[in-house]
Amino acid sequence: MKIRFYNARILTMRDDEALFEGELWTEDNLISYVGDKKDNSGERFDREIDCKGNVLMPGFKNAHTHSGMTAMRSYADDLPLQAWLNEKIFPMEAKMTGEDCYELSRLAVLEYLTSGVTAVFDMYLDPDHIAKCAMDTGMKFVQVSGINKFGPTLEVLEDRYLRLNGVSPLSSFKLGFHAEYTCDLSLLEGIAALAHKYKQPLWTHNSETEFETKDCIKRYGKTPTELMDSLGMFEYGGGGYHCVHFSDHDIEIFKNRGCTVVTNPGSNTKLASGIAPIQKFLDAGVPVAIGTDGPSSNNCLDMFREMFLVTGLAKLSTKDASAVDGLKVLKMATVNGAKAMGLDDADVLEKGKEADLIMIDLHQPNMQPLNNIAKNIVYSGSKQNVSLTMVHGKILHENGEFFIGEDPEVIYQKANEIIKRLSV
Amino acid sequence: MKIRFYNARILTMRDDEALFEGELWTEDNLISYVGDKKDNSGERFDREIDCKGNVLMPGFKNAHTHSGMTAMRSYADDLPLQAWLNEKIFPMEAKMTGEDCYELSRLAVLEYLTSGVTAVFDMYLDPDHIAKCAMDTGMKFVQVSGINKFGPTLEVLEDRYLRLNGVSPLSSFKLGFHAEYTCDLSLLEGIAALAHKYKQPLWTHNSETEFETKDCIKRYGKTPTELMDSLGMFEYGGGGYHCVHFSDHDIEIFKNRGCTVVTNPGSNTKLASGIAPIQKFLDAGVPVAIGTDGPSSNNCLDMFREMFLVTGLAKLSTKDASAVDGLKVLKMATVNGAKAMGLDDADVLEKGKEADLIMIDLHQPNMQPLNNIAKNIVYSGSKQNVSLTMVHGKILHENGEFFIGEDPEVIYQKANEIIKRLSV
Repeated sequence: MKIRFYNARILTMRDDEALFEGELWTEDNLISYVGDKKDNSGERFDREIDCKGNVLMPGFKNAHTHSGMTAMRSYADDLPLQAWLNEKIFPMEAKMTGEDCYELSRLAVLEYLTSGVTAVFDMYLDPDHIAKCAMDTGMKFVQVSGINKFGPTLEVLEDRYLRLNGVSPLSSFKLGFHAEYTCDLSLLEGIAALAHKYKQPLWTHNSETEFETKDCIKRYGKTPTELMDSLGMFEYGGGGYHCVHFSDHDIEIFKNRGCTVVTNPGSNTKLASGIAPIQKFLDAGVPVAIGTDGPSSNNCLDMFREMFLVTGLAKLSTKDASAVDGLKVLKMATVNGAKAMGLDDADVLEKGKEADLIMIDLHQPNMQPLNNIAKNIVYSGSKQNVSLTMVHGKILHENGEFFIGEDPEVIYQKANEIIKRLSV
Repeated sequence: MKIRFYNARILTMRDDEALFEGELWTEDNLISYVGDKKDNSGERFDREIDCKGNVLMPGFKNAHTHSGMTAMRSYADDLPLQAWLNEKIFPMEAKMTGEDCYELSRLAVLEYLTSGVTAVFDMYLDPDHIAKCAMDTGMKFVQVSGINKFGPTLEVLEDRYLRLNGVSPLSSFKLGFHAEYTCDLSLLEGIAALAHKYKQPLWTHNSETEFETKDCIKRYGKTPTELMDSLGMFEYGGGGYHCVHFSDHDIEIFKNRGCTVVTNPGSNTKLASGIAPIQKFLDAGVPVAIGTDGPSSNNCLDMFREMFLVTGLAKLSTKDASAVDGLKVLKMATVNGAKAMGLDDADVLEKGKEADLIMIDLHQPNMQPLNNIAKNIVYSGSKQNVSLTMVHGKILHENGEFFIGEDPEVIYQKANEIIKRLSV
């Protein structure tokens, strides 16, 4: 399958490369050309797409989410994190089947596609069904284990790690755990041993709330980050989701260990968890990526909302309108996410890289005039501007239509049936 | 013109009325029926619209904006308010013609329609050209004077007030001024006298930044609100835009004077101005409406972003995830805005009210499942969900198409030409 995108504005997201007018070709799952307008006589394409001056750029990487939580969107709002989790979410999840997980992840895929997301870093209940969702829909899922003291066992985690990596270019599996506060010390030690055995990075929810952080200090005399580091958990890098209540020492540990912060400002805002110190992370040279968190705590899977919140909350909390410039945020949402997720071949638009890309429609009032197109995307962009989403060389969403092998109405109906059953 | 919307979910926004399934009829500019499914034999409609289970609700009221600033979107970002205003915006505005103002307001209208906005409370440079924009496009503009010590005169203000009210049901004009810090005392006294003469409410930017508030205290020994109140400016109500740095005494004054706060969280976030104390306003019984502010400081005109920020920032700043529930926010964005703008006939869906309404598409992944539709709109809603916007009984936007008497591409081109000329 060879596709030619012509008459485009191209934002490769390669360091400091300015947006330029040109074209891009894909061949199967790879980008085969990016550059100026090119003579295509002699080339045969399966499809030629006139981009009408719209932007092609790398797809967004949603670097922290719980896709299967779509069922609980707007089901338990306006509650603090611990009450929301213990009283509402955990009891419902206990009733959720693998098939439910598959269906609810498909619903999330639809929403990712409308938001220009081409890969997700997903932590949820049934990794086998989620891997199937990735392969069936065509979305790229990098799964991460959410193991905790309620399950599964370390043996299951190891089995999943070995079995679910490599089954498909759309599906991979990283070592991780739910959070310090849902694991006991021996389990954390076991997880660290696995990371050492396979020389792998580790990922987890880290310092999301003030309560979590203080409680860890009370129990261990260490912050969650200090505890994890003392257990050797960051020997091969990795990072944390949320990282709201980070001390200067925690930041130093992340810097020294080459760890990445995945910030989730929508969720942290709605659950009143706090504002992550993004400017401090940048000053220290700690890479930051962006995730939506799950749709029950956000409640949407919208990278545009997240991007505005990353820069906006940094400006608010530092009282400095120049903090965390929009262009840095665009890099977090694309390149940094790809690196964090181990998708080094899906970070920028370049010959030989994965064809994971989106088209941003500039023929919309919120994108006009064209003073600064990249800043328009961050500061005034919205899902309405995503006119095409291509993952692994396949167009999964175009002009409002979905091509994921299922009628969206069927997926909506199933999600409504599932929540009805779970909430009984 | 008689239109029948059937097979709808209806959110009237009348106090405590739950969403119900039914239909709605319009006749010219008015709603002629709202209720259960109705036998329509014998009725003749010009058009019958199958809503397919989607939501009909009152249009959003954007209760503070500067429409003509679309030219400067993404033109001067990442700057604090005073530098942004004095070094970038004022010099460009000095070169702006009335015709520019007309064109740039038309660009804003396109964006309002995509966001389900059916009326705007607009403060900008050339009220005659803006009134023409309202009448030509069909959007409802409630203009408010932005008089300050650089112009125009009190005589011009009075003339505009008398001349521009009543020219069209789409155009009205309120007394107001730019801000305390851009007016000297004698001008403020003159404005207060006009408000008394015509028994009218007064509107202005109020306590947007900490600097502005402290500087006023230094000059007058009073906060901006105390100063305005001491001049009798709130004798007939009105209110303030932004109201970020409000003392408890300021809140008390607003409560006693029946004034409304129009909050602008997107702008306050991006310019690092601060977080308005929304929960305190609600506790005190001060009504709150919502505005986007202008597209140069936000940078979009998106009521969905604003709604999420209103509840989210309230939750963050009070450290209480239950603060300012989403349903209250929906009321602010519709009913409270209408009341603040003097549009008492455009607040809710009810027989005899203005046909200013929108359709929210539930057949989108971010609206599924249907656990709580009203909360879905606030917490996960997005411009992509606005499938129809009707103002004064006329459909101006439907399924991505615009019906405002001009090709959007012409408007985009003119906006680009204008910014090119202004920025020389």
